[in-house]
Amino acid sequence: MSSRIDANAAAARLRGAQNILILTHRRPDGDTIGSAAALCRGLRQIGKRAFVFPNEDLTPRLGFLLEGLLAASGFVPGLICAVDIADVSLLTDSAKGFARRVDLCLDHHPSNVGYARELALEEHAAAAGEVVWAVLRALGAALDLPMWEALYIAVSTDTGCFKFSNTTPLAHRIAAGAIEAGVDFHRHNHAFFEAKSKNRFLIEKTMFDKMIFSADGRIACSWLDRPWLDSIGADDDDLDNLSTLTMALEGVDCGIILTQNKKDPAYKISIRTHEPADASRICQSFGGGGHPRAAGCTLSGPPEAAAKRLMEAAAAELALC
Amino acid sequence: MSSRIDANAAAARLRGAQNILILTHRRPDGDTIGSAAALCRGLRQIGKRAFVFPNEDLTPRLGFLLEGLLAASGFVPGLICAVDIADVSLLTDSAKGFARRVDLCLDHHPSNVGYARELALEEHAAAAGEVVWAVLRALGAALDLPMWEALYIAVSTDTGCFKFSNTTPLAHRIAAGAIEAGVDFHRHNHAFFEAKSKNRFLIEKTMFDKMIFSADGRIACSWLDRPWLDSIGADDDDLDNLSTLTMALEGVDCGIILTQNKKDPAYKISIRTHEPADASRICQSFGGGGHPRAAGCTLSGPPEAAAKRLMEAAAAELALC
Repeated sequence: MSSRIDANAAAARLRGAQNILILTHRRPDGDTIGSAAALCRGLRQIGKRAFVFPNEDLTPRLGFLLEGLLAASGFVPGLICAVDIADVSLLTDSAKGFARRVDLCLDHHPSNVGYARELALEEHAAAAGEVVWAVLRALGAALDLPMWEALYIAVSTDTGCFKFSNTTPLAHRIAAGAIEAGVDFHRHNHAFFEAKSKNRFLIEKTMFDKMIFSADGRIACSWLDRPWLDSIGADDDDLDNLSTLTMALEGVDCGIILTQNKKDPAYKISIRTHEPADASRICQSFGGGGHPRAAGCTLSGPPEAAAKRLMEAAAAELALC
Repeated sequence: MSSRIDANAAAARLRGAQNILILTHRRPDGDTIGSAAALCRGLRQIGKRAFVFPNEDLTPRLGFLLEGLLAASGFVPGLICAVDIADVSLLTDSAKGFARRVDLCLDHHPSNVGYARELALEEHAAAAGEVVWAVLRALGAALDLPMWEALYIAVSTDTGCFKFSNTTPLAHRIAAGAIEAGVDFHRHNHAFFEAKSKNRFLIEKTMFDKMIFSADGRIACSWLDRPWLDSIGADDDDLDNLSTLTMALEGVDCGIILTQNKKDPAYKISIRTHEPADASRICQSFGGGGHPRAAGCTLSGPPEAAAKRLMEAAAAELALC
């Protein structure tokens, strides 16, 4: 189990270290990459050697944040810091070797299993970016434009552009600072929250075409099979946050999306709920976890059978509410 | 022409007045109603008699903000204050009589024509709510939950939930204060930015299912037939702004939606374009008109033939760009 520390103590650990390696989670999102980029730049600013470990799942939409920050293969870390990673199972394949060697974790997931030696966990933060922001302040780093840009992407993407219920006052204040610093936030908002690629369009259309509902209309469920996703050349960006779309549907309190994995035939499950239904409780019964409003797990196919099991578990959760 | 004053001077005017009447604009949005509600409550808190003039266009979604604040017909105002109203042409019909008697205007529209005796205009503010926030601070009002709620709705609705390019640091900071004060922001975000009725969901799905694209992918076109719309009981709200959705699609520069009329078999055409394609020029060739980015016309069916003619005209317009 990790020792719990606060942002000041985390900053002290980083200040005492050299050769810092930052890890991000598999299928990386704006929070893990933005947090890693901001932290790495802040550490360099106060005179540290710091790098982000290459993430083989990284897509071009986020890749620009890590330009010039990636560790070369020969880099020998003196301190390993994970950002936004709740469990070692979320490390990328190439980072699995670090699983027992993580010195420090900066996170906001209540489900963090405590794999790191020390853990700075802010359970009520909307994003790990908030924890990184606090650590950067404690380090005395002067936030520059690229750091603000990375922090803006971290907090905006994890809050659905300040729309979700997890949005915090600090997330808004970080956005205010980023706009004041000159971040081209509208370009990012368009890219992350507005623009829809042709594949994304096809995927949403197919998802809604195949969607099934529980008899009372409170549970919506759909799935996407890998052969079809491969046939249109879909990438991970195209699949990002699909389950959130179900939350817009009138009467739906639980949305479940199954997406078949790339390298094995199992399905990655993403569940979203409206209060008070607990998505993490549903996912825990299948060995997964996450947040009350957004959680995930993995199930083997066929998708129709997995969907049935998930909808039954969701119905049981809704019955408790 | 108005005398330009700042928020402190506006607060001084209000502090010196009694019996204050607040005006909102026609087809009211979250900013004009939220601004009026917050200002009215703040004035009452510092001991003023203050009311909001009833707005006959008000819908239930915003109406709750003005509960207990509406002026009765006998109210004789000592000071008339307009919020978020750039021109007297934007007064509701029942408020037209005040057009030459507005003492003070709090606004953020650069296009404000200066009809009020004094004008506190913050041209770079995302919302009039930012000006009201500054006036309330200058008044020394202690913001309570209903005031924060009204201000949150003012700034969030005018920024598309902090997504549009007009979003300011102050808009974010007001949101931070509102969340700290306990505003149920997620409920409002859901109602204003997320919720999709079952009919809207069905209509969007059908629209995208039937959508056809030009060979180069730059033109998207779809249509909705009245018998089907009637069969699901669609109303005008369900059909609002459908063509805007086409503008999110990658590569699409012109979106065309045909919706069959209620009382005749013709189709109402709505066209949206990205710069520099001119939607009004396309519609003019069919006897319609509008703005460069959004225009309309009417065509008789069958829809496939009308779509073909419209797409040919759109292709001709795009060829000019």
